[in-house]
Amino acid sequence: MKTAIFGASGYTGQELIRILSGHPEVSLTAVTSRRFAGKEIAEIFPSLLGITSLKYQDTAPEEITKIADIVFLALPHGVSMEIAPVFIRAGKKVIDLSADYRLRDLGTYEKWYGKHVSAGLFKNAVYGIPELYREEIRETALVANPGCYPTSIILGLAPALKNKLLDVNTIIADSASGVSGAGREPQIGSLFGEVDGGFKAYKVGKHRHTPEIEQELNRLAGGKFVISFTPHLLPVKRGILSTIYASLKKDISIADLYSLYSSFYTAEKFVRICPVGTFPNISSVCGSNFCDIGLAVDPRTKRIIIISAIDNLIKGAAGQAVQNMNILCNWKEDTGLQMAPLYP
Amino acid sequence: MKTAIFGASGYTGQELIRILSGHPEVSLTAVTSRRFAGKEIAEIFPSLLGITSLKYQDTAPEEITKIADIVFLALPHGVSMEIAPVFIRAGKKVIDLSADYRLRDLGTYEKWYGKHVSAGLFKNAVYGIPELYREEIRETALVANPGCYPTSIILGLAPALKNKLLDVNTIIADSASGVSGAGREPQIGSLFGEVDGGFKAYKVGKHRHTPEIEQELNRLAGGKFVISFTPHLLPVKRGILSTIYASLKKDISIADLYSLYSSFYTAEKFVRICPVGTFPNISSVCGSNFCDIGLAVDPRTKRIIIISAIDNLIKGAAGQAVQNMNILCNWKEDTGLQMAPLYP
Amino acid sequence: MKTAIFGASGYTGQELIRILSGHPEVSLTAVTSRRFAGKEIAEIFPSLLGITSLKYQDTAPEEITKIADIVFLALPHGVSMEIAPVFIRAGKKVIDLSADYRLRDLGTYEKWYGKHVSAGLFKNAVYGIPELYREEIRETALVANPGCYPTSIILGLAPALKNKLLDVNTIIADSASGVSGAGREPQIGSLFGEVDGGFKAYKVGKHRHTPEIEQELNRLAGGKFVISFTPHLLPVKRGILSTIYASLKKDISIADLYSLYSSFYTAEKFVRICPVGTFPNISSVCGSNFCDIGLAVDPRTKRIIIISAIDNLIKGAAGQAVQNMNILCNWKEDTGLQMAPLYP
Amino acid sequence: MKTAIFGASGYTGQELIRILSGHPEVSLTAVTSRRFAGKEIAEIFPSLLGITSLKYQDTAPEEITKIADIVFLALPHGVSMEIAPVFIRAGKKVIDLSADYRLRDLGTYEKWYGKHVSAGLFKNAVYGIPELYREEIRETALVANPGCYPTSIILGLAPALKNKLLDVNTIIADSASGVSGAGREPQIGSLFGEVDGGFKAYKVGKHRHTPEIEQELNRLAGGKFVISFTPHLLPVKRGILSTIYASLKKDISIADLYSLYSSFYTAEKFVRICPVGTFPNISSVCGSNFCDIGLAVDPRTKRIIIISAIDNLIKGAAGQAVQNMNILCNWKEDTGLQMAPLYP
Repeated sequence: MKTAIFGASGYTGQELIRILSGHPEVSLTAVTSRRFAGKEIAEIFPSLLGITSLKYQDTAPEEITKIADIVFLALPHGVSMEIAPVFIRAGKKVIDLSADYRLRDLGTYEKWYGKHVSAGLFKNAVYGIPELYREEIRETALVANPGCYPTSIILGLAPALKNKLLDVNTIIADSASGVSGAGREPQIGSLFGEVDGGFKAYKVGKHRHTPEIEQELNRLAGGKFVISFTPHLLPVKRGILSTIYASLKKDISIADLYSLYSSFYTAEKFVRICPVGTFPNISSVCGSNFCDIGLAVDPRTKRIIIISAIDNLIKGAAGQAVQNMNILCNWKEDTGLQMAPLYP
Repeated sequence: MKTAIFGASGYTGQELIRILSGHPEVSLTAVTSRRFAGKEIAEIFPSLLGITSLKYQDTAPEEITKIADIVFLALPHGVSMEIAPVFIRAGKKVIDLSADYRLRDLGTYEKWYGKHVSAGLFKNAVYGIPELYREEIRETALVANPGCYPTSIILGLAPALKNKLLDVNTIIADSASGVSGAGREPQIGSLFGEVDGGFKAYKVGKHRHTPEIEQELNRLAGGKFVISFTPHLLPVKRGILSTIYASLKKDISIADLYSLYSSFYTAEKFVRICPVGTFPNISSVCGSNFCDIGLAVDPRTKRIIIISAIDNLIKGAAGQAVQNMNILCNWKEDTGLQMAPLYP
Repeated sequence: MKTAIFGASGYTGQELIRILSGHPEVSLTAVTSRRFAGKEIAEIFPSLLGITSLKYQDTAPEEITKIADIVFLALPHGVSMEIAPVFIRAGKKVIDLSADYRLRDLGTYEKWYGKHVSAGLFKNAVYGIPELYREEIRETALVANPGCYPTSIILGLAPALKNKLLDVNTIIADSASGVSGAGREPQIGSLFGEVDGGFKAYKVGKHRHTPEIEQELNRLAGGKFVISFTPHLLPVKRGILSTIYASLKKDISIADLYSLYSSFYTAEKFVRICPVGTFPNISSVCGSNFCDIGLAVDPRTKRIIIISAIDNLIKGAAGQAVQNMNILCNWKEDTGLQMAPLYP
Repeated sequence: MKTAIFGASGYTGQELIRILSGHPEVSLTAVTSRRFAGKEIAEIFPSLLGITSLKYQDTAPEEITKIADIVFLALPHGVSMEIAPVFIRAGKKVIDLSADYRLRDLGTYEKWYGKHVSAGLFKNAVYGIPELYREEIRETALVANPGCYPTSIILGLAPALKNKLLDVNTIIADSASGVSGAGREPQIGSLFGEVDGGFKAYKVGKHRHTPEIEQELNRLAGGKFVISFTPHLLPVKRGILSTIYASLKKDISIADLYSLYSSFYTAEKFVRICPVGTFPNISSVCGSNFCDIGLAVDPRTKRIIIISAIDNLIKGAAGQAVQNMNILCNWKEDTGLQMAPLYP
């Protein structure tokens, strides 16, 4: 199968190149970048020397339709929406890693992100969390690959919400992400000197992933509610940990909670429930497509604490995108994604 | 004034040596360590070469009473309680950095920590957060220097609780600490290979600082309630950030909240309220005795989010201990503590 | 093919488990550890949850001979020498990751390491750098897997020495290693608080890899000489960079030097020569079996500067061991080793 | 004494502000920055909230002459040379932290840096290493504050060169610096994602500090020679470690070498010679004005290995500049510089 990556100059693009280069079913036929057009990938990412000999090109989407059947869009929001329709019209499959097709409500999109120019495609798009929407993904031509924070929070809460365990108005998601989530653009806030030894919250109460998270949690719980979501910046390269709090509507033992989660994800290759009493560490999923989930019930406060960890560039971006491609193509879902976490 | 440090082999002890060596009013006459007895401090901590020429000694507390008027106990809980009474009986001032005299209720202490052998001293001890209990500290002979997490959370919540802004049953404190908080004992969990690139929660719902935090928050609010407190381990050497959530009992604008906090701490040299819209970073307090506090009001969820940052070894331990000593001795409260944060 | 790992409780053992779990030609039948006997691997290394369900066992080597045809010894020097003979006598293939069979001269071994109890096997052992000794490896039953520092330095110097470019008495190798090289034993010097933000030399002029490096460089150059080797400790988890200096015996342009190196390694999958003017970074080989080599000629000083980078746990240990196994078994040499570096 | 900082928007400028704010003899009257003009310093560097209330201004040097007697130039090379003459003409003292007045030979300057427009001032400038040129510094109006790498290498070699111990044609300085040395400009190479977990050499054989180092080493040894100097980028914020190799011209025991170094620096407050057998760590000087020096003699290779460590922003820049100011003003040389290293 021929694939291409549109906008492959950043960390997510690089991760897609890396994973696709080892994927036995696909050939990567083109990677685009306006900035790096004409340069070899390995000139920009020396780690890929000898892994790929492709050069970046600055090619119109119309040209790419001729050499790829599945296209990954690793573009900023606002740009994807101008490119995706070209591929859809040409009958291609699109996996969009931006936020442009994740929200189903135009008003919400425009409130948080700005004007949308191809909202007509909303109805075609499927929100690409395989563990929840595998069948819909299989049928679609446009996968809206989820945000990194939303992936960690939605997977963490899904079993509890589906089982109506929680007072949904009490949900608080306190998350922390590695710096690669901010991309590879040079900016003071991402400098080593600013990040190393530091830890801070940012966009408190204002992060654009909030409506995406709420949309999906509302859908899982079958109701309308808002949550608190606070992202923090971690001095690590990769990884997201979400610590999620909610009041329990009914008593549940930790053993039952563990069973419930284990059953919910029993067929899932990429979700691991941590043994009772243990909790995830982002370093234990680094380099893999796993989402690790740990559970606690606090009898003192009658709250549940759910902690989930992913590699933001893999399960939170490129890996999940490839997982979605595998579903679209009816390949084994872990094809090209079997890498064990790199530890230490 | 002659001071000594009992149990100075760890990071907190080292930090006390470092600060006291630059303190213009005191001379450090003895530092004890069973393990390092006979060795020069600079042999254990080469950073202190030329700063101090003291050697570690393994001396009975009775001997130390003869050469020190103020004694810092940088010992594990359970050990302080055996040593502190000696100094108190000898008429010395004691600043205890362990948990042994922080709790006022013997039952609570013994539930979380184990047997207490000198609970009779509880009534003498003052909980040493100067910003809240300055007058009591001035009069006591036994300061219970607060825990690092509690310091960050109590200072963060004090103005809101005193002003009855919060539904106290909804308080959640999500905290993260640098590794120096785990001490300098060799253990797998503190190895660079385990910590770097990682982030995890630990002792979820079970950390021993919980009753200490609740005791002080209850006292500030004038009522009985429990909170959720989740500590996390950060891949940094120093720093604690606490992100604290609570539902508001009444509406308040961010401007009013900022005013309220600024007024509350207006006379305090070591509490800085971040300008509205900005939030603390542990790297901005590193190496200093500051506690930085940032504030947000989320109208969507009607929650307040308070974020506080300290250097766990300074405002969370040795610096606050010296601040308490300055109060005990009627010196300017920032004597020896004027170091600006080390940035970057 | 059935394989076992003897002594798999540390970082190298873990890396072997990780790589072998994804190797299509082998099944891992046993992993031993005295300390962790009876525990699941994933209990010790949560990153491997779902990757393997093996438990650590404390089994005599005689028992392991019954269930494995190839045995990896990931043991400290001095211990391997007691175990290896059992497997050799039983007709098994042994890949020893300790130093016990790397040196060919008993006197040298005993001077740097201490008494040797199975020096009779020296003649059987092949020094396992595939790029230099592939044919000998194929025929042996005992591979002495090279040290991490030696691998980086020997691969860096081999083409220059074979081509007699250097004044061999001027060779200086200045190397730096990530902390995983020190193993997973709890010790103060490997704590995050000691390592992060730090950089230091250690064992200056005294590191035990020195005789191993000299033995192999002497062999490559066909002569007797000593070198300066200074290891440093880097605040990273993985990676070794060696910056190697030597005076040129004759003039050579950088273009010719690049050609010479490229030709020398042209058939090698795991050695990458950096384009002229670029130099390796340990982060560009992290997670892979690559050795990257960069070259400079300094006309001012008439010195060559060779810089090589490897992942110390992979090309410097477990990956090279698996590469050696692939040769022993006549499999494609990169079987199970095709992982691209994990970047960023 | 009134001081000003011209060009204070970067890390070195910030460090000067930080140190001068705690200096008992000076008042900081102005800090300039084109980019940040009108902003409070604490807006750019939140760590300085409450430490200073100055605002950045964009003021002509002529104006600054009216409000400052000593001016620090924390400007890029090429810019200082346009500004310094204004202050010199106005009879002010200038401490220039750029490279513009460090070299004494116009040709050398222009070969490595480009055109010089005020080379007439070369004769006025004194190279500001107090340990070597204290008396000259006291008399000058223009201090050329040394580069960070040169400081570490020159202090490391001075006693050996003055005592003619070395074959000067064999000197190799292998150095590594924290990222703050690259400044605070946003650039991909300084991003956390690029630096963390990495280690690489850069500008191999081409770093502009080379002629500065050679000039001073030549002067110390009284002869003409070149050296190899290779800088590396460390994943730390602060610190430079230089590992320096040279062949010994005559035998010397490590004890004698230690004595020689100790005597040479016996009156120096900011140079610490590590006890024999121990070596410096950049984390042991972090946050201080110390230069730590460790020594080894390798009888096998007849080489000396000298290792020196400084905090690049303090002894390598702002701290040394303040030390020079103290000399210019006849204050105690460690005034405002007594901070002990921040460890861990």
